[in-house]
Amino acid sequence: MDDRVREHAETIVDYSLDIDAGDEVVVRAPSVADDLAVAVSELLGERGAYPVVMSGREDEKQAAFLAAADPDELETPEHEQALFEAADAALHVRAHANASEMSDVDAETHAAYNQAYQPIQEEILSKRWLLTQHPSPGSAQLAEMSSRSYADFVYGAMNKDWEAQREHQEGMVEILDSAEAVRIVSGDTTDLRMSVEGMKTINDHGKNNLPAGEVFTAPVPDSVEGEVLFDKPLVHQGRVVEDVHLVFEDGEVVEHGAAKNEEVLTGVLNTDDGARRIGELGIGMNRDIDRFTYNMLFDEKMGDTVHLAIGRAYDICVPDDRDPNDSAVHVDMIVDMSEDSYIEVDGEVVQRDGTFRFEDGFEG
Amino acid sequence: MDDRVREHAETIVDYSLDIDAGDEVVVRAPSVADDLAVAVSELLGERGAYPVVMSGREDEKQAAFLAAADPDELETPEHEQALFEAADAALHVRAHANASEMSDVDAETHAAYNQAYQPIQEEILSKRWLLTQHPSPGSAQLAEMSSRSYADFVYGAMNKDWEAQREHQEGMVEILDSAEAVRIVSGDTTDLRMSVEGMKTINDHGKNNLPAGEVFTAPVPDSVEGEVLFDKPLVHQGRVVEDVHLVFEDGEVVEHGAAKNEEVLTGVLNTDDGARRIGELGIGMNRDIDRFTYNMLFDEKMGDTVHLAIGRAYDICVPDDRDPNDSAVHVDMIVDMSEDSYIEVDGEVVQRDGTFRFEDGFEG
Repeated sequence: MDDRVREHAETIVDYSLDIDAGDEVVVRAPSVADDLAVAVSELLGERGAYPVVMSGREDEKQAAFLAAADPDELETPEHEQALFEAADAALHVRAHANASEMSDVDAETHAAYNQAYQPIQEEILSKRWLLTQHPSPGSAQLAEMSSRSYADFVYGAMNKDWEAQREHQEGMVEILDSAEAVRIVSGDTTDLRMSVEGMKTINDHGKNNLPAGEVFTAPVPDSVEGEVLFDKPLVHQGRVVEDVHLVFEDGEVVEHGAAKNEEVLTGVLNTDDGARRIGELGIGMNRDIDRFTYNMLFDEKMGDTVHLAIGRAYDICVPDDRDPNDSAVHVDMIVDMSEDSYIEVDGEVVQRDGTFRFEDGFEG
Repeated sequence: MDDRVREHAETIVDYSLDIDAGDEVVVRAPSVADDLAVAVSELLGERGAYPVVMSGREDEKQAAFLAAADPDELETPEHEQALFEAADAALHVRAHANASEMSDVDAETHAAYNQAYQPIQEEILSKRWLLTQHPSPGSAQLAEMSSRSYADFVYGAMNKDWEAQREHQEGMVEILDSAEAVRIVSGDTTDLRMSVEGMKTINDHGKNNLPAGEVFTAPVPDSVEGEVLFDKPLVHQGRVVEDVHLVFEDGEVVEHGAAKNEEVLTGVLNTDDGARRIGELGIGMNRDIDRFTYNMLFDEKMGDTVHLAIGRAYDICVPDDRDPNDSAVHVDMIVDMSEDSYIEVDGEVVQRDGTFRFEDGFEG
């Protein structure tokens, strides 16, 4: 077994999930991630914890089940809910044998399943939980990379000093946490202004996502003004939407366009009222993620990028006395900030062409 | 996918487990049995039932966990127990990627795990449950067969008309159910007498085992007299014991021997008092199982054989007002009855050289 798999397993068990003797753990992993599941199972045995290893959420077994299921009859499976209720920690390993495995499942069934699964999802989020990636042929193909190079990329982004990364990111947390006005400018296509006044900024350093490497908060919903062009493609339900362009007034999308598959974007925006507002502002700070791989777990943490999500805001970013932007969707989109770009906070430039104010080489 | 996998899945879902809409099912299957798990998941979706697919009991993940675990610390995992408690049906698929996978797990850990797992095992046995086999390279290697021939063998034994098989077996159930004295004679090495008076005979026709194909009961514990030589090897904890020879007086083993690995046999007999008595008399009646494959799920149903288990008797064979033979072990051993052999019931020959009294060609 690749030593990097064992290193990854150690980070998962000892750092992210902080496993102790007696912990009961659910490991969701597709068969193509068996190497990681074996390494994690061994470590859980060493720590005195106990694994139940389940199939992955997007593997051939679940695809076959969902493609055959009647969406009108899908209910929350009580046995699966009982499993997670009794668990202390949940590990979800993503790894595609075939990234198109779910393509026979229609949108109605997807939606019905997600709704039926919602109580289980909430159960998982109330525990120690982690979403991570195992390199696999289908995920490499999605990234348009060889299996060998993809594995190098994945482990480069994940097997790192998370304490040092946390400290690096803390510089941006301090800036955003006390900020009011944020402005994001890139070339002559993006100039977006929003307020984050009173919102909480989260330092993502490997407790819930591996790879981690972003700092995120929620804008005040009706404060967003201006326009944005997303350089990186949006992938939604297996379809690629390119060059998404949005114009905001009073926080709401008033114009939208895309160079390819615009109707997918239109569909997302028409989901509900909250889908026309921004729920998340994120700053990608993991510079070992240096390319786009059609996998939001990595893409949103890419160094020298900013991402915005239309739709649902994270509760943890919003003070108790305010309502988070609510929506059935949360769709992230990415702006490249590495050239001819800057982030301005309360009138001061805090990042220019990807370099932060608290780093060497910054030119305000 | 092999059509025989789909046929197998249909037998499992519609015949053995009798799945209906709303049923919540736990499927335990190793990754090497993914084909079957996919076919079963698809059918469960079609029937409106819901699968949770778990890793297999003897795959590399569980082996890694158990090899690392401290036997003194193993407890019943509550999350796994909660899963089975809430389930309606449990499918256990056996398939070895490597039949020696568990060889790093010591006997103490095996025993501690089995004890910790006992409440879950009882939970499973209180539901609709099935143990079956998927053909795999490791299982084929254990059988000393090519993968292609092994698959033919497995499906030949499983994908058959179970109603016709049930009727065939009912002939032997009727004989044994009302019987008192049973005598088993093979060559000049086996002449064993026992009483089955008052014991219940079970027709195994595919509800809990696939393949099925045996008729079994329990002898009156202290009634067994005589000697027996088991032609087929006994495989216990990965070790092969050949030519087991036992002599019984008043139901108890008073002499024992083996041509190879006798100490394994001695260890089994010394487990407890019940391990020196016979808990099961079984008649193998599945003639599509025509060879020994070191897999008791198949071997004990082999046509023209009789098997005896030392140790624990099945409760369902014993009337409520009597105590079943009790032991921590239940170890099956097989006598070839195809030549120079007969079964006598209450003084009448009911099978000679493998042919039953109720079949053409029988020569009393």
